Amino acid sequence: MTTATAEPATSAAYDALIAHIRETNLLAGTAGLLGWDQETMMPAGGVAFRSKQLAQLAKLIHERKTDARVGDWLADCEADNDLLADPLSPQAVNVREVRRAYDLATKLPTDLVEAFARTTSLAKVEWAEARKASDFARFEPSLREVVGMSRRKAECLSTSDTAEPWDALADTYEPGSTAAEVEALFNGLRPRLVELVGKLMGSATPPSNAFNERELPIDAQERFVRFVAEQIGFDFERGRLDRSTHPFCGGTHCNDVRMTTRFHKNMLGDALGSTMHESGHGIYGQGLPADHIGEPMGDDVSLGIHESQSRMWENQVGRSRAFWQWCQPLLKDYFGDALNDLSIDDVYGGINIVRPSLIRVEADEATYNLHILVRFEVERALMRGDLSTGDLPAFWNERYKQYLGVDVPDDAHGCLQDIHWSMGAIGYFPTYTLGNLYAAQLFDKARADLADLDQQFARGEFSPLKSWLNENVHAHGMRYRAGELCEHVTGHPLSAEPLMDYLESKLLPIYGVD
Amino acid sequence: MTTATAEPATSAAYDALIAHIRETNLLAGTAGLLGWDQETMMPAGGVAFRSKQLAQLAKLIHERKTDARVGDWLADCEADNDLLADPLSPQAVNVREVRRAYDLATKLPTDLVEAFARTTSLAKVEWAEARKASDFARFEPSLREVVGMSRRKAECLSTSDTAEPWDALADTYEPGSTAAEVEALFNGLRPRLVELVGKLMGSATPPSNAFNERELPIDAQERFVRFVAEQIGFDFERGRLDRSTHPFCGGTHCNDVRMTTRFHKNMLGDALGSTMHESGHGIYGQGLPADHIGEPMGDDVSLGIHESQSRMWENQVGRSRAFWQWCQPLLKDYFGDALNDLSIDDVYGGINIVRPSLIRVEADEATYNLHILVRFEVERALMRGDLSTGDLPAFWNERYKQYLGVDVPDDAHGCLQDIHWSMGAIGYFPTYTLGNLYAAQLFDKARADLADLDQQFARGEFSPLKSWLNENVHAHGMRYRAGELCEHVTGHPLSAEPLMDYLESKLLPIYGVD
Repeated sequence: MTTATAEPATSAAYDALIAHIRETNLLAGTAGLLGWDQETMMPAGGVAFRSKQLAQLAKLIHERKTDARVGDWLADCEADNDLLADPLSPQAVNVREVRRAYDLATKLPTDLVEAFARTTSLAKVEWAEARKASDFARFEPSLREVVGMSRRKAECLSTSDTAEPWDALADTYEPGSTAAEVEALFNGLRPRLVELVGKLMGSATPPSNAFNERELPIDAQERFVRFVAEQIGFDFERGRLDRSTHPFCGGTHCNDVRMTTRFHKNMLGDALGSTMHESGHGIYGQGLPADHIGEPMGDDVSLGIHESQSRMWENQVGRSRAFWQWCQPLLKDYFGDALNDLSIDDVYGGINIVRPSLIRVEADEATYNLHILVRFEVERALMRGDLSTGDLPAFWNERYKQYLGVDVPDDAHGCLQDIHWSMGAIGYFPTYTLGNLYAAQLFDKARADLADLDQQFARGEFSPLKSWLNENVHAHGMRYRAGELCEHVTGHPLSAEPLMDYLESKLLPIYGVD
Repeated sequence: MTTATAEPATSAAYDALIAHIRETNLLAGTAGLLGWDQETMMPAGGVAFRSKQLAQLAKLIHERKTDARVGDWLADCEADNDLLADPLSPQAVNVREVRRAYDLATKLPTDLVEAFARTTSLAKVEWAEARKASDFARFEPSLREVVGMSRRKAECLSTSDTAEPWDALADTYEPGSTAAEVEALFNGLRPRLVELVGKLMGSATPPSNAFNERELPIDAQERFVRFVAEQIGFDFERGRLDRSTHPFCGGTHCNDVRMTTRFHKNMLGDALGSTMHESGHGIYGQGLPADHIGEPMGDDVSLGIHESQSRMWENQVGRSRAFWQWCQPLLKDYFGDALNDLSIDDVYGGINIVRPSLIRVEADEATYNLHILVRFEVERALMRGDLSTGDLPAFWNERYKQYLGVDVPDDAHGCLQDIHWSMGAIGYFPTYTLGNLYAAQLFDKARADLADLDQQFARGEFSPLKSWLNENVHAHGMRYRAGELCEHVTGHPLSAEPLMDYLESKLLPIYGVD
């Protein structure tokens, strides 16, 4: 017997609040489209005007987000027991998340927001110059200022539950995330990762790199990755794939998702990986509940969960043997004879090569998390006051030696490589590793639920996995926080085991060790 | 001796007014970009959200345009004799044109604006259905309503100088334009046009149509028209060319101009004509004064002057023998041997074929203006009350027989062919013919000033003409009204002679008559 559950009656305050939020998100979508256009379509001459358009929209959006009426409507809603009776109802989720966003937007004094914008705007310029000259000393005064302001920001955002300053900043990217929790996860990762990488590097039979060096026409690469994106479930009636220098996934809402990728003559693996990564973001975006466009209930959970979707399609799917059983025979349709001499082992091995390196964005699936660990330790120590900005290069270089076994030759290849801190994005980096962890744990559960996932991939069937993700992850919008969602779906809190089990069981055989 | 002219000191009211107007135009540029994206890039799924985004921006823009402070600032500026001392200064031009726009925006009562939007929204649907069924009677009630509202609109917009209702509407598209003036121009055109077309149709040696029927690969067509657009002076660092169903030129400002074109396998002439037409709009847009972006002083004069720029490049340049002396030998670089059998006379003749027809958008350079004449006579009579909507088809068909010598078989090929009236755009059509007239008269003056224009075109040199237009037309922004600009540049008020002289001297030899 099925009981139809009526939506609870809402209130005038709730309706006004949601109408306001939806209007605000129309503007946010417009800003999103302008940002996409700037990276993909805009001619060079458009830069100055575009930055004024974006600043204007940012101001309009901020005014609407901090509108005092939002506070009044929220207070009315929060006093309405009927409305919030079921904490997992769209109404309760919306009120909870609008409250969170309103508090974040109003807790920071305007002078701090403006000073932060000014400081980071200059710091980005200084960082670019310092990186070019490979001279950390040049960036250090700016970074010191950014760290100082970030600590002030953390003070404003802290609540009685906040254990340390880093947590208050990380919470803006990954709600509920704490340094203690991230540290515990890394404690589960670090020893096994370091051991794994050591074993792989000792292999006498590493995989061939030939696949990664083969020159292939770019238009054929583009047709190929577009085909794969469509096969794994990206809906081109509700989205686009274009080119940009740095691949990203943006757009305005679930029915108009804009993703990009990039091509190099001799990097098909990179183009495919980027495309599957962004397709994972895009499939998540397209899977959000369309009935709740413009509301928190129709929005994604967090950066970590978003990254879990991109990493799963890029890695768990796109670097699996089963995927290549389907995909390798298709290569000849796009590249003729150019890859005929490579066996499936050459291709599968080639895209799974592990190589400790200096640069995060070029890192492989295994060593990537060690790059993040260094950054997390730096950020946390800076925010705690345990590390002064002047000591950063030495701290960085020592950790790279310890975790990755590499010697950092200069700051450009070391602590100056990422733009994030110059932009004030402290607390952001660990969301990448959280994404890897969520991906592995969710994928294990999908495999258990769907039984013959590998056989499906080998036949080019990806819709069971996509539907599983639609149902178990995407359809919930912001109903659950990231950690809650993970427990709700997998039955366990997030842990390092699934990722490590996955990496070891895949990589050791490829390298012929253990 | 050169005297440096200092910019006159402005006032707080003027500065506030201009800052407000520039901000408003940032939003208008954003709406422009969203409109461009919708026609060129947006996936089908984006429609519903996009219409909400555009409605939101339209509301924000309207609120800013009718903001009472604009009226106060204007009053202050208009009382400031120093500010307005030179009526051609940027300050005086801006105050004059902001006043004009403010009056237009505030003269219409809100209930009329809303009723007009509702009525035309429904009328567009009715028109589309009626056209499909070729049944004017179905559209007639909607059109009657649109005409009634347009008369009410004209009453609101009329001043003591307004001679008849049509003028008040035409003024919104072509400032200062009147039915009496348009009628006088058509009186100069009609007899000569009808006679010319009669002579051409009596030719025993009409040009070959082979060029217009040749099938050519679309990617080669695209490379070719892009090359021509660049050669005639469209700056791809400050603009783009994409595809859309209906070619248009939009964008946000002079440094980011977005134009589109269209392709069919067997219509290279159409693709080239569309591209040169839109490039003319684009070159005008890119030539507007960058120092005054977002102010009337940085805006175009009128639809008629805009159309003069597109028509000049499309027709006076693109359909000239000199242009094809340069261009024809280049065809083999794009199309190999596919056009080798066609002589320059075949190509030049083919793109200048005249053929009286039923459909305006397919009309040639000569008969086009007769299509417009019919529409002008209909509009004017409807607005005066001399024609009832029920009698429109008979009126239309009788005029088509008289001017173009064609029998209208049904309403779909007759008075239902254009969307304009269903949208409430009464007074718009004559701007197309004004554009043709301005193009011919300005081009005569350019030819006199630049002497060997034909020899330049034959060598592929288009920058002298472009620079002449930049200096004499584009750089003035809205300094002059259309008629004033014409007199200022050519020394004569607009007349029908230059266009008729141009058409006769070109077309009669092509057809081997007279």
